[in-house]
Amino acid sequence: MDVRDRLEGMRREVEAELERALTGGGSRLFEALRYAVLGGGKRFRPLLLISAGETFGAERAALLPYACAVELIHNFSLVHDDLPSMDDDDIRRGKPSCHKAFGEGPALLAGDGLLALAFETIARAPQTPGHPERKDAVLREIAAAVGVRGMVEGQWLDISLRPGEANEGLFTELVRKKTGALIRASAAAGALVAGAPPEGLAAVEKYGEAVGLAFQLRDDLADAVPSDSPSGLDAVALFGRDGARARLERSVSEAIAALDDGRVASPELRHLARELRADARV
Amino acid sequence: MDVRDRLEGMRREVEAELERALTGGGSRLFEALRYAVLGGGKRFRPLLLISAGETFGAERAALLPYACAVELIHNFSLVHDDLPSMDDDDIRRGKPSCHKAFGEGPALLAGDGLLALAFETIARAPQTPGHPERKDAVLREIAAAVGVRGMVEGQWLDISLRPGEANEGLFTELVRKKTGALIRASAAAGALVAGAPPEGLAAVEKYGEAVGLAFQLRDDLADAVPSDSPSGLDAVALFGRDGARARLERSVSEAIAALDDGRVASPELRHLARELRADARV
Repeated sequence: MDVRDRLEGMRREVEAELERALTGGGSRLFEALRYAVLGGGKRFRPLLLISAGETFGAERAALLPYACAVELIHNFSLVHDDLPSMDDDDIRRGKPSCHKAFGEGPALLAGDGLLALAFETIARAPQTPGHPERKDAVLREIAAAVGVRGMVEGQWLDISLRPGEANEGLFTELVRKKTGALIRASAAAGALVAGAPPEGLAAVEKYGEAVGLAFQLRDDLADAVPSDSPSGLDAVALFGRDGARARLERSVSEAIAALDDGRVASPELRHLARELRADARV
Repeated sequence: MDVRDRLEGMRREVEAELERALTGGGSRLFEALRYAVLGGGKRFRPLLLISAGETFGAERAALLPYACAVELIHNFSLVHDDLPSMDDDDIRRGKPSCHKAFGEGPALLAGDGLLALAFETIARAPQTPGHPERKDAVLREIAAAVGVRGMVEGQWLDISLRPGEANEGLFTELVRKKTGALIRASAAAGALVAGAPPEGLAAVEKYGEAVGLAFQLRDDLADAVPSDSPSGLDAVALFGRDGARARLERSVSEAIAALDDGRVASPELRHLARELRADARV
């Protein structure tokens, strides 16, 4: 089976797992959660997590709860970032953003609910028999990525920057936290579930770091209108299209090199990194 | 040593643990987190957690990270509940609420950060040697209490109720989720850290359930102005002062009876429940 088909198979299983996680609540809150999460999204972070885990021998079933959790966290951040007091975006994935559809208070709560549900999903995942420390390590990795030294701090830096303050150093720091932390943690979490050896884990972390930067560069290049970042910190504005493209090429190469150096033979991880480059060419 | 002194000693250790958890971040985000959490608050949930844990033999040091986590979660909910799109409260603990002091976007992120930091604090707590399942059970308990069938759903119900819709059944359901879930989970979490026997855990859960309701009744009775609940669902408005006081008495008695029936000999848990009654008399 082709790598694209295998990734598509993963994507379908992630979708089904998300559907299950978002079923069963009695209140209209669940409508808002489903609206925010289902029917859209490339599920990039879950695919990274599952690919990294499977290349080190973890079972798909053991990876799915964590894959679901990182996608819930990603969607929590989208719902809150779209709020009027943040980026104030009316459209998300081609439809009205959550607060446009449900109201501002409900969207705030839906975001909170998605973050809480992510940790509930992790909480309910079984420990690996004989290796209870693995789940603990995954929890630490994911919690740290979200938190006050990760995504939340990245978004804080973004809304705190003043126009004109942007430079490459700030851009890299901000992207590493706001976008990169969860992407890197997703790849690392897969390796941690599998109990990957230290050099394998280090390779995947390095890969995740480079992919996180590439992802943001691709995003900025793909946007017809410049950045929805509150600070206007946008790779195209900062480096020009050619500069952004060159940096994207470099990050993808670094990601692949990290896999090669660590002897991580995962066609899926390779494909997910290369695809970022291909997308930007369109 | 008197029970009040022992509780005061716990409170000081919780304060020091919170101070540690909120130290070390480089950005101004940490200022907002510290503003929201430190210098106020009775630390009721941490005291429940530590008291329940110690009565079943857990060490203070093993309980403190979880005690800190439930307080961070409580403060996350206060910061978000105070936002203009929710209860729109300008004052919290006698000073400007977080969004008044830092702005609405920053307060939204500070709340997100507190919730994430709570789970990071849990993640960093060590597993009990020989009993890795205990930490897992605590994580499940706390995550479920926050989430889409707990606090977040309670707040959702609160903002969804229409004026005049209130009745005792709705009041009890709403309070059980919005206020009660975390209070009950705090007591249960302590017992779970200690590896309490099933009948002890059940008694503490029943105690926590009754204390959660008593806490809200006390709160509504103590308020000079009726309820800051968005729906106006307030015990005094609903039952009158005498009716609310009678229900408070009953809940406190139920809490104490749960301890007696389960042979849980904790002067601290007893005192924390009784104090709710004493407060309301003032």
